[in-house]
Amino acid sequence: MDLAEGVLAGDRRAVARAISVVEGGGAAGAALVDRLYPRTGRAWRIGLTGPPGAGKSTLADRLIGHFRDAGQRVGVVAVDPSSPFTGGALLGDRVRMDERTAGEAGGVFIRSLAARGALGGLSEATEAVGDVLDAAGYDVVLIETVGVGQGEIDVAEAADTVVVVVVPESGDAVQAMKAGLMEIADVFAVNKAERPEAGRMVRALRQMLHLRPPPEDGWAVPVVKTSAVEGAGIGSLVAALEGHRAHLAARWDETRTARLRRRVRQLVEAGWRARFWDARRSALDAALAGLEAADRTPHRLAARLLEREGADREG
Amino acid sequence: MDLAEGVLAGDRRAVARAISVVEGGGAAGAALVDRLYPRTGRAWRIGLTGPPGAGKSTLADRLIGHFRDAGQRVGVVAVDPSSPFTGGALLGDRVRMDERTAGEAGGVFIRSLAARGALGGLSEATEAVGDVLDAAGYDVVLIETVGVGQGEIDVAEAADTVVVVVVPESGDAVQAMKAGLMEIADVFAVNKAERPEAGRMVRALRQMLHLRPPPEDGWAVPVVKTSAVEGAGIGSLVAALEGHRAHLAARWDETRTARLRRRVRQLVEAGWRARFWDARRSALDAALAGLEAADRTPHRLAARLLEREGADREG
Repeated sequence: MDLAEGVLAGDRRAVARAISVVEGGGAAGAALVDRLYPRTGRAWRIGLTGPPGAGKSTLADRLIGHFRDAGQRVGVVAVDPSSPFTGGALLGDRVRMDERTAGEAGGVFIRSLAARGALGGLSEATEAVGDVLDAAGYDVVLIETVGVGQGEIDVAEAADTVVVVVVPESGDAVQAMKAGLMEIADVFAVNKAERPEAGRMVRALRQMLHLRPPPEDGWAVPVVKTSAVEGAGIGSLVAALEGHRAHLAARWDETRTARLRRRVRQLVEAGWRARFWDARRSALDAALAGLEAADRTPHRLAARLLEREGADREG
Repeated sequence: MDLAEGVLAGDRRAVARAISVVEGGGAAGAALVDRLYPRTGRAWRIGLTGPPGAGKSTLADRLIGHFRDAGQRVGVVAVDPSSPFTGGALLGDRVRMDERTAGEAGGVFIRSLAARGALGGLSEATEAVGDVLDAAGYDVVLIETVGVGQGEIDVAEAADTVVVVVVPESGDAVQAMKAGLMEIADVFAVNKAERPEAGRMVRALRQMLHLRPPPEDGWAVPVVKTSAVEGAGIGSLVAALEGHRAHLAARWDETRTARLRRRVRQLVEAGWRARFWDARRSALDAALAGLEAADRTPHRLAARLLEREGADREG
């Protein structure tokens, strides 16, 4: 039984090994992804993002508990888009995450991911790990990511349904807005709802969502209050998630195709970029060093390199 | 006198018009940038970034005041990398910024920038506006940007010296770290230093900076306490900035060339991307719609499109 077959049979050790292979990228990773991809599309990929300290891990615990109670198998991918230098904070999360598996007889698979620089970036790595878990028969793939930067937004694109977790203290709802979270949220969870500012935060988010141009796909983003620590509001959150899933069901092929298109674009661009600059780095250096100042200008240099590309290919 | 000549003569109306032209991108913008670029390299471009509410605008006011007192001309570029939907918050800053020019007899030029989707992105637009102000003879170009996302980091790359402004309340120094701010800061300003947690924040930042691998260029990032509202610590901040400027002076050509290289790379990639996808979008759509499922996989599709590129150019 080869690795792909092991994954398709749901073998945990094969899944673990396959994740390492696709995470590593390269030809072996690409071949494995391509082998598994046609067997994916069944899992529901839920992204969970938001600022540090919003309580994402505890909320993830609650969601895992819910799905397990419903008899579903859950794969968890914890993604840290930050630099290697910043491992400390996430380590805490990771330890907590391991604890929550302690009581499980199985049915939950947890893996962390901090790949940088793989072809197509972290977003592709997240997609690929999602493919492995999906192909292995996990019903739900929970993608947890820390922070609110571009990295997190890229990762969120790998999910079918994105939950943005905020807390009243993350200050102003304006911050969520500024960080581009409004654009990626399918559901907002205002966590730590026991705090007095929670109601105001919910109203502010709803108001801002209302001010947006109506979404193309007609989905109205719900804002739910949760208190992960107390276990309150989980039912409402799950209902909101299920609502989005039902909404997606009507356009599932479309959604999957759109995501595949984006992946292919990223892979093509990354492949081209590596190939192009491998060949042109010296040309750029020579131009920077050799040209007269009047020609050593941004657009003239760019045009020169783009023309060379055409010339090289034709010649 | 054409527009470029007007800029070089320091004419304010020409500068305003030139900024609109380069901000608009396109052939006219590119030509103007290329015309002005050889006349740039004299201004000191200082980036000011950090989370919302850190007091960047007030600190910018203080710095402007300092440079004006020293007889320098100051150009200010306020950049908002957020989506158009998020205009509200920045508007407040803008209004305040206008107020601070009210009393000026001249010597300060303020412009806001929210261009998205220009060729090369916001980072290139910021560089280009900096070029205009630089060529027009402004001694200092202050680039203010709101937030801590990738957009802000891109914008910071357009500056010679980057000040990251944080406040004790922005919580944990870990957040600055997670957001990638450690990587871009040449100077840290812990603002609102009158607050009791300021000392702890300074120590935490210094400790984290100390834990990093030593920087390639040998610059040790200073952490200074400021209280922009009270006007305290501005002298220390300016000293830290001047220290970095002196550090740069020894490698000025190198620094400028590195920035030009990055700009050219971005422009080439953006140019290629537009050209490539204009020609290949339909090929991708056809492949997504027409191929058998086993071939409709991420890496196979990417390879197909990259091969087509070669084939089309050679054919």
